[in-house]
Amino acid sequence: MLKAPPKNSREKIKNLLLDFQDNICKGLESSDGKGKFTEESWRRKEGGGGRSRVLKNGSIFEQAGVNFSEVNGEELPQSIISQRPEAKGHKWFATGTSMVLHPKNPFIPTVHLNYRYFEAGPVWWFGGGADLTPFYPYLSDVRHFHKEHKNACDKVHKDLHKVFKPWCDEYFFLKHRNESRGIGGIFYDYQDGSGNLYKGNNQDSMAFEASKKVGKLNLKWEELFSLAENCGKAFLPSYQPIIEKRMNQNFTEEQRKFQLYRRGRYVEFNLVWDRGTIFGLQTNGRTESILMSLPPLARWEYGYKAKKGSREEFLTSIFTKPQDWQKDLELEKFCLANNIFD
Amino acid sequence: MLKAPPKNSREKIKNLLLDFQDNICKGLESSDGKGKFTEESWRRKEGGGGRSRVLKNGSIFEQAGVNFSEVNGEELPQSIISQRPEAKGHKWFATGTSMVLHPKNPFIPTVHLNYRYFEAGPVWWFGGGADLTPFYPYLSDVRHFHKEHKNACDKVHKDLHKVFKPWCDEYFFLKHRNESRGIGGIFYDYQDGSGNLYKGNNQDSMAFEASKKVGKLNLKWEELFSLAENCGKAFLPSYQPIIEKRMNQNFTEEQRKFQLYRRGRYVEFNLVWDRGTIFGLQTNGRTESILMSLPPLARWEYGYKAKKGSREEFLTSIFTKPQDWQKDLELEKFCLANNIFD
Repeated sequence: MLKAPPKNSREKIKNLLLDFQDNICKGLESSDGKGKFTEESWRRKEGGGGRSRVLKNGSIFEQAGVNFSEVNGEELPQSIISQRPEAKGHKWFATGTSMVLHPKNPFIPTVHLNYRYFEAGPVWWFGGGADLTPFYPYLSDVRHFHKEHKNACDKVHKDLHKVFKPWCDEYFFLKHRNESRGIGGIFYDYQDGSGNLYKGNNQDSMAFEASKKVGKLNLKWEELFSLAENCGKAFLPSYQPIIEKRMNQNFTEEQRKFQLYRRGRYVEFNLVWDRGTIFGLQTNGRTESILMSLPPLARWEYGYKAKKGSREEFLTSIFTKPQDWQKDLELEKFCLANNIFD
Repeated sequence: MLKAPPKNSREKIKNLLLDFQDNICKGLESSDGKGKFTEESWRRKEGGGGRSRVLKNGSIFEQAGVNFSEVNGEELPQSIISQRPEAKGHKWFATGTSMVLHPKNPFIPTVHLNYRYFEAGPVWWFGGGADLTPFYPYLSDVRHFHKEHKNACDKVHKDLHKVFKPWCDEYFFLKHRNESRGIGGIFYDYQDGSGNLYKGNNQDSMAFEASKKVGKLNLKWEELFSLAENCGKAFLPSYQPIIEKRMNQNFTEEQRKFQLYRRGRYVEFNLVWDRGTIFGLQTNGRTESILMSLPPLARWEYGYKAKKGSREEFLTSIFTKPQDWQKDLELEKFCLANNIFD
C-alpha cells in the first residue's frame, strides 16, 4: 500500500505544471525574438480541460506547441489499468504539460518535453522526460542536453539517471526503422517511489538491467515532485544554449530538405509508436492539441539513402543509436575529426 | 468447410496481380507523359518477396507507388487468426498489388487501390478495393469513380456493391477527426464465398445492415477471382478521365497549401488506423514499400478552419461524409449552384 500523497497534491503539481508552461513559453519567446504564443483554453466533456499555446512562423521556431491539461474521469483505460491494477474502479485525475518545438534551421534540434502526474484511488504516480531530435547533431550539444538533465535527476537521487537515460532510448525508438528517434534524454513513468525504478515491460532492456542493479528505491512523493520540478526547470538551460550556438549557422536548400525528410520520422514515431498520442486519438482526446506535436511540414522519399560518410549519414550511423555520449572517446575523436564536435 | 480453391489458384491470382501492376503502371506513365516508373525487386527473409515500382516528379504525379508482393510464412499473426480461426497452425500464402498516387495538381484526387488473396490451410479469401481522396472534389468525378466500380462489382453479382460501398466508407474513416478519408469507393475483405458479405466487426455499421438485407450468398472461387479482375481493370477507366479533365486546371499557392494540409490526414489515416500499414510496421514488413503510400510532402496546421462556404469547407462539410452520390438530388443541386458539379 502506497503512502497517501499530501493533501494539496493536485494543487501543488498543477501549479508546477502551469508554471512550466508559463516559463517555457516566456523563455522560448525570448529566444525567438519575433514569434508570440497564442492561447486557446478548452473544456473536456468528460471532465477537466486545458490550455494550448502555439507559436507559428517565428524567427527561430517554425512551430512551437506547449500544452497544459488537467483532466479527470470515471475509470482509466485498460492500457493503464493493466499497468496499475489497483486503479481499477476508481475515479482518476491526470495533469500534464507537454511541448514539441520544430525550429526552422536544421542545425537546431527538434525537442520534446512532457511531465505528468496521475491519481486514481489508492495509487498515484509521476511520469515525464525530455528528448532531443537533431538533424545535424554536434556532440557538444548532445552532451550538454544530457548533462543538464542528468544534473536535474542527480539532485534527487544519484541512481535515477542510470535508469531514466536508457529508458528514454528504449521508449523513443522506431522499431520499423531500427532507429532511435533522436539522441535521447530522460524518460520515466509510473513512479510512485516504491520498488524498482524501471516500470516498463521489456525485460531485455538496458533500463531493466540498470534498474535491477540499482535495486529497490524508496522515494517520497515530495522527492518525485522535486524530480519533476528539477527536470522541468532544466529544460530551458539544456536547450537555449543550443539555439544560440546554431541559430546563425547558414543552411542550404538540401539541408532543409533533409530536415523535412527526417521530420517524417517524427510523424511516424508519434502516430505509430507513441502510446500517449495513439491513446488520445483512439479515445476522445482533443485532436488538435494532441497533434500539435506534428511538424508544420514533412517529407517522405521512397528509398532515400544518405551518401556514405556524409553529414546526413552520421545522423543515423552514429546519433540515432543509443550511446554513452559523455565517455566514449572513440566517438569524441570521430566527431572532432569530422567537425561535428562543436 | 470451404470448397478447396482450384489447383492452380496461387499461380492464377499471382499472374492477375502482376498484370494489374504492369497495366496500371503503363496506363499511369501514359497519363503522366513524362514520369517513368523505376523498379526494385526484394526478397523477404521469412519467405517470398515483391517488386516495388515508384514514379517520382512526373508532370502529373508528384509520386506514384505500385507494389506487388507474394509472401508466405509459418503462421498468420493473431490479428488475422482472430478473424479466421481455421487458419491457426497452418502455413500461409498471401499475394497483393497495392497502389497510392499523389498527383501534384490539387484538382486531381489522390487515389488508393489494393487487391489481395490469402490461403492458409483449409481457408482462403479475397480482399481489396479502391478509394478516392479528392482535395477539390467535383460531383461528376465522384459519381464516375463510383459508377465504374459499381459496374465492375455488378458483373459478378448485383448485391455486392450494396455492401462494399458502405464497407469502404466504414473502413477509410478517421475517428479522431470524425471524417471519411475521401469520397469512398469499394472495400471488401475475408471473401470466401460463404455466409454474409460483410465480415467486419462493427454491428452498428451500414455495411452490416446492407449485408443482413442481402443475406447469405454463395460465390465460387472463380467468381471472386472475377470480382478482383473486374475491379482491378476498372481502375484506369475510373481514374484516367478525371486526370484528363482536371490536369489543365490552374491552381493557386493557397490551393496547393490546402492539398498539403489534407495530405496530413492521409498520413494520419495510414499510420493510425490502417490495419495493413500498422501490421506491416509492427511486424517485419519492408518499411520502404509499406510507407510508399505516404505523400512526398505534407503539412499540419494547428487549429486550421476552412472559411464558411468556401471550396475548402465543402470538402469536409459535404464530401468527407458518406453519401448516396448518384441519387441525392439536393446534393446535385447544391453542387450545380456552387460550380462543383462538373
